[in-house]
Amino acid sequence: MQKTTRPIVAVVGGGVCSSQEAALAEAVGRGLAEAGATLICGGLGGVMAAACRGARSAGGLTIGVLPGYNAADANPHVDIPIVTGMGEARNVVIVRTASAVIAVGGEFGTLSEIAFALKLGRPVIGLGTWELARAGRPAPAIVEAQTAEEAVRLALGAR
Amino acid sequence: MQKTTRPIVAVVGGGVCSSQEAALAEAVGRGLAEAGATLICGGLGGVMAAACRGARSAGGLTIGVLPGYNAADANPHVDIPIVTGMGEARNVVIVRTASAVIAVGGEFGTLSEIAFALKLGRPVIGLGTWELARAGRPAPAIVEAQTAEEAVRLALGAR
Amino acid sequence: MQKTTRPIVAVVGGGVCSSQEAALAEAVGRGLAEAGATLICGGLGGVMAAACRGARSAGGLTIGVLPGYNAADANPHVDIPIVTGMGEARNVVIVRTASAVIAVGGEFGTLSEIAFALKLGRPVIGLGTWELARAGRPAPAIVEAQTAEEAVRLALGAR
Amino acid sequence: MQKTTRPIVAVVGGGVCSSQEAALAEAVGRGLAEAGATLICGGLGGVMAAACRGARSAGGLTIGVLPGYNAADANPHVDIPIVTGMGEARNVVIVRTASAVIAVGGEFGTLSEIAFALKLGRPVIGLGTWELARAGRPAPAIVEAQTAEEAVRLALGAR
Repeated sequence: MQKTTRPIVAVVGGGVCSSQEAALAEAVGRGLAEAGATLICGGLGGVMAAACRGARSAGGLTIGVLPGYNAADANPHVDIPIVTGMGEARNVVIVRTASAVIAVGGEFGTLSEIAFALKLGRPVIGLGTWELARAGRPAPAIVEAQTAEEAVRLALGAR
Repeated sequence: MQKTTRPIVAVVGGGVCSSQEAALAEAVGRGLAEAGATLICGGLGGVMAAACRGARSAGGLTIGVLPGYNAADANPHVDIPIVTGMGEARNVVIVRTASAVIAVGGEFGTLSEIAFALKLGRPVIGLGTWELARAGRPAPAIVEAQTAEEAVRLALGAR
Repeated sequence: MQKTTRPIVAVVGGGVCSSQEAALAEAVGRGLAEAGATLICGGLGGVMAAACRGARSAGGLTIGVLPGYNAADANPHVDIPIVTGMGEARNVVIVRTASAVIAVGGEFGTLSEIAFALKLGRPVIGLGTWELARAGRPAPAIVEAQTAEEAVRLALGAR
Repeated sequence: MQKTTRPIVAVVGGGVCSSQEAALAEAVGRGLAEAGATLICGGLGGVMAAACRGARSAGGLTIGVLPGYNAADANPHVDIPIVTGMGEARNVVIVRTASAVIAVGGEFGTLSEIAFALKLGRPVIGLGTWELARAGRPAPAIVEAQTAEEAVRLALGAR
């Protein structure tokens, strides 16, 4: 039997976010689904819920890797809740499973996902997220995108 | 938006198995898919591959929660490879995500999944798997099924 | 520099236990410390607390690998609380870190630790714990000890 | 029984490092031990080994939380190797167990530890490590120290 794997792309960002970030995340989710990619995220609210809603609106499949003990913690747009019970360590699972990571805004949890992705060699596309520097000089490990469409294109092209 | 969750049922068993166990696992996978359930397993060979093959043959969705670092470790019948990089600790994720566990044969890894499932209150249906006792008396925590069909029925009825 | 590693032995068992089990666990902990071994356990109450109390009474070092988010969850006889935040997945860490496992009584969580230990090839010494069988025949993977002293001797001899 | 907990402080940094970073890490380890703190780290080489060597030279206790499957992976200055088999997810365990984190240089793995620590509210003291910004403006979440002594003082004072 032929194995047909769709790309799996992570969308990471805050569990609480601005309406602008939510709109961006929703457009990213929709774009990923339109391109045939599966969405993986942390399964909770904010950027995660907006990205799942966008992916669902275009018929995409959504995976939510939850930190807690209960599938009911997932936002209503998650098709497949993966229940880890491992707290923040679930961030590693999100990143390992994805071929690329799109970060929309985000706080320290998002920064941990960015860092793991860079450690594991996954491309990270940023939309208004963290900027990294060392010794006063920018460390351009995150590829900055200007629009949701560009972020999707970069994430899928990077595979 | 209405959230429609399909049940997710785990099939656990050896990465190497007898042809009889493979046939049982395949029938279990097929039965779960025919009943509209999603299959979750450890994503590798033996019972896991047979169950995924069965589920796929009936149009079902298959999730493989891998212990290693590479999605390519998944058997060819896995639709969604979840890459944990967490070794045997991934067994906990399989069990937490499932509403019930069907064990086909199996060795010590399978016993760990049975034990976690019982600890977490998930029903465990056995097909030729471990038997537990304390102080010389059987501890009937595993519900023994005689056929794949009965195992599927018990797993879904137990929700 | 010479690396002098003391053996690390796990004591596993219920978070609630009988007074007889507590006495056994305390004697096991004391015996391990007297033999120069470090004790590792799940860090909570019952068998874990009794074993730590015994080890401390003989000047031994005690490690508690906690499932939750707070070092204060550790019983008062834990010297080194390792805070995993990973729930039951912490059982894998306990077993991997130990060269042998002594099980005193115990419920399903203990069974998961026994199973992981057997999977990983760690010797498992039982004191009134689970009995395993397959197809109606005992599977003698757990070495049954009659006394705390015998359990300690077997655990250390098995290295 | 009175529970006397020593503070546990994490030292994080690259598995390969410059001689200057190694000297800093060694001084940090020594300073922590002299102050009565226990050292926790990832247990491997570079900054981790230097910090353990420093702590040992002052009679301190050292814990190495290893990503792999084998206690023998630990550097020779680790007293207590915790074997997780969980890859990079072990970074979460290091940070959760510590009351403060000192980062010496470091690459993306170190950045993940910094991010987790900030997420969990642990103070992070930096010695020549990452600098964070958002929207072109510095995000001063990491407390920069100029010397090993200052880093130790800030880490212990922050409890």
